Amino acid sequence: MGEQPKVALIVGAGDATGGAIAKRFAREGYVACVTRRQADKLQPLIDEIRGEGGQAHGYGSDARKEQEVAELVERIERDIGPIEVFVFNVGANVPCSILDETPRKYFKVWEMACFAGFLTAQAVARRMVTRERGTILFTGATAGTRGGAGFAAFAGAKHGLRALAQSMARELGPRHIHVAHVVVDGAIDTAFIRDSFPERYALKDQAGILDPVHIADSYWFLHTQPRDAWTFELDLRPWMERW
Amino acid sequence: MGEQPKVALIVGAGDATGGAIAKRFAREGYVACVTRRQADKLQPLIDEIRGEGGQAHGYGSDARKEQEVAELVERIERDIGPIEVFVFNVGANVPCSILDETPRKYFKVWEMACFAGFLTAQAVARRMVTRERGTILFTGATAGTRGGAGFAAFAGAKHGLRALAQSMARELGPRHIHVAHVVVDGAIDTAFIRDSFPERYALKDQAGILDPVHIADSYWFLHTQPRDAWTFELDLRPWMERW
Amino acid sequence: MGEQPKVALIVGAGDATGGAIAKRFAREGYVACVTRRQADKLQPLIDEIRGEGGQAHGYGSDARKEQEVAELVERIERDIGPIEVFVFNVGANVPCSILDETPRKYFKVWEMACFAGFLTAQAVARRMVTRERGTILFTGATAGTRGGAGFAAFAGAKHGLRALAQSMARELGPRHIHVAHVVVDGAIDTAFIRDSFPERYALKDQAGILDPVHIADSYWFLHTQPRDAWTFELDLRPWMERW
Amino acid sequence: MGEQPKVALIVGAGDATGGAIAKRFAREGYVACVTRRQADKLQPLIDEIRGEGGQAHGYGSDARKEQEVAELVERIERDIGPIEVFVFNVGANVPCSILDETPRKYFKVWEMACFAGFLTAQAVARRMVTRERGTILFTGATAGTRGGAGFAAFAGAKHGLRALAQSMARELGPRHIHVAHVVVDGAIDTAFIRDSFPERYALKDQAGILDPVHIADSYWFLHTQPRDAWTFELDLRPWMERW
Repeated sequence: MGEQPKVALIVGAGDATGGAIAKRFAREGYVACVTRRQADKLQPLIDEIRGEGGQAHGYGSDARKEQEVAELVERIERDIGPIEVFVFNVGANVPCSILDETPRKYFKVWEMACFAGFLTAQAVARRMVTRERGTILFTGATAGTRGGAGFAAFAGAKHGLRALAQSMARELGPRHIHVAHVVVDGAIDTAFIRDSFPERYALKDQAGILDPVHIADSYWFLHTQPRDAWTFELDLRPWMERW
Repeated sequence: MGEQPKVALIVGAGDATGGAIAKRFAREGYVACVTRRQADKLQPLIDEIRGEGGQAHGYGSDARKEQEVAELVERIERDIGPIEVFVFNVGANVPCSILDETPRKYFKVWEMACFAGFLTAQAVARRMVTRERGTILFTGATAGTRGGAGFAAFAGAKHGLRALAQSMARELGPRHIHVAHVVVDGAIDTAFIRDSFPERYALKDQAGILDPVHIADSYWFLHTQPRDAWTFELDLRPWMERW
Repeated sequence: MGEQPKVALIVGAGDATGGAIAKRFAREGYVACVTRRQADKLQPLIDEIRGEGGQAHGYGSDARKEQEVAELVERIERDIGPIEVFVFNVGANVPCSILDETPRKYFKVWEMACFAGFLTAQAVARRMVTRERGTILFTGATAGTRGGAGFAAFAGAKHGLRALAQSMARELGPRHIHVAHVVVDGAIDTAFIRDSFPERYALKDQAGILDPVHIADSYWFLHTQPRDAWTFELDLRPWMERW
Repeated sequence: MGEQPKVALIVGAGDATGGAIAKRFAREGYVACVTRRQADKLQPLIDEIRGEGGQAHGYGSDARKEQEVAELVERIERDIGPIEVFVFNVGANVPCSILDETPRKYFKVWEMACFAGFLTAQAVARRMVTRERGTILFTGATAGTRGGAGFAAFAGAKHGLRALAQSMARELGPRHIHVAHVVVDGAIDTAFIRDSFPERYALKDQAGILDPVHIADSYWFLHTQPRDAWTFELDLRPWMERW
């Protein structure tokens, strides 16, 4: 009998960042449990991890639904092992003038980038506190630290997520749960940036956009910090980014 | 025929702060339009303003409902006059461990303190931009600038509101709309504090809790700033408050 | 015998802002005591205040010299009256690449904008605490809240000044001294801007640069706040300023 | 002929933190050049590094003296090799009421914790820009982000240092120099804490104070970040620290 597997749960593994984080933790011996709304789209990531000799499981799960979240966490803890690391990596920005923003979209941006973070982090934290260990990592953005013209919805959601992270860190740190928030400031090397912002994407040759693999390195660094020297927040940006 | 009345709309005039702001603007010649969910509870405030020779109208209106908000703004602009000043003064904190917070309450705190702010400020801003003038004031809290143990829901909502205010200020300033955010840091002289935190309330004799009349002074100050020297944010706290 | 005169001491009244603040407090009945390094340059300001029926006295004093500062405060308190309001309004930016900045200039910028603030505010605070009353106001800048390329010296000094203001507010608030910090964010209507940045100055017609009179209004507002609702910090910027 | 040695220069290696950083970089193959005012006190550290098979050189150098700093950098670059990493780790806090703080001490705290940082970082940066590579790391503190009662001098100096770091990062990032600022929030496992704050030191058993070795890990992490994903700032604190 080997030792119990350790799980890294990445909610929102639909993009390059979530995928790179999953691969990184799998490579370090964690069982990568990855979710997105449509499970079938996770197959290439799972195949890739397994192809490298790692372990991975995919789950179709809507992080905005309390019941689905509860079931997801229950199922993983029962079938795979204790969640040692939880990464919340959901949320997208669609800029819009405050005069034109629809209530529906304003709500949906928040529901996805903030409310889902609350639901999932809470469900995982309840397990972690019983074991007095665990790491909870939130993918944030510059919009979580300042508002901007056209950014009311996204900045609101990301501010809310940062407030959640900070509130959890202050409450759960003393219970041995490491909560951290990563402020990603810049375009990431994704299909979305490649297709929608080709000029921006062209900066890739100069290392002007973020490589998801390097973002993942930061998550691993945060997870491995001993508890006398925990980081709550770090920012990540390309050398040439204006800030 | 005299000149057109100028309206100060205070959404969330159910507490001491909203009431004091309404009275202040009424005293300065504005028609105070005040709202809360139950219109009948507004009568004492309206009577008080009228008793002082001011003008006031009360509206039962749920600021979380897009349709009600649209109708409220439409009705005031049609029947009373252009909204020159808009104050959003809604939101309450009920501290709770992140482990025990219910999704329903987490949502409701946000819906009331942030989403309603979006709905109402947007509806008013759409009118103001056509006139290229107006003031939009948000009542914030320290929780809007930092999270805390037990504060995930309230801090999330207030962070979102601050992000909204900042995003609106950056977009609408150049269109001559003054948007500002007041960080109230301390207990306010209200029935709630008197009844629930008697020890805190006892500090009133030493000016250790905020007088709503003085909060209202700040709102008036912000509104009267000429546009070459606008304040986006100011904090208010009693001299003896730790911060 | 009339009541004792109340003094408003403005250190750094050499520019438009300091002068406007002096005039404002003089108009409200305070004896304006104004300083700059060369006393003779203060005469026009003093004449102007007296011409309006106000009281003013000018002092040549180098705020970077402990002894001169001690003598200034001693002389005013003995000859004129208790300093009720103190305004520190010294400091100028001369942008420079970090690679070219000279140690001498880096030091001088700090000595003028930060060290002089420490010396003068401390000397005044020692008097105020014995009376358990008084207001201390610092003129800050955006550079006090964020660094920038070419701004190492000025940002360093203004950060230091803000830290001083915050430290004093936290220590002296409980002793009934109101300490506040004003973040001026934008060009001010001064001879310097007119002569050196004519394009910027041209924005004056659109209220695109700050009128010192309006800055002074904010200082007066801060001074008059009752102690249950003190502001530590407010920002001031033209409506069209990018931030 | 082997490749050219790479130098890590640690200014302020007199304490546990600077020493741990030097050891970490030496272990990674860098030649550790360490300084403090009295060179002889560096010998134990140098012996320790050499005992582990690393390379180290000690320099008695006063980082507050322009000439000494210029000579130090010149000598290292000429005799040892190019400075690839520079760590500024100087500065100490001696809390004092703002009413009692002496101008001399206020100045000295700044001279040591901020001005010396400017002198040394500038001297090193001038070399790094010619090579278009290098890492500059500043040891900051919570006092660099907020003032506090009794902290005017230290907070002022650390605010100034943070402003320097931020200004350098914004100017030199685009020139391929990675500038970062580490906010150490908590007591560090040093002789000073052991002797002066025994109660605090007793928390060591629970990992309640920072281990310098773990602080050093963060500096190494920052140095190794590829330039598409640079961190400007991260905080470090024990799990049980209140913040």
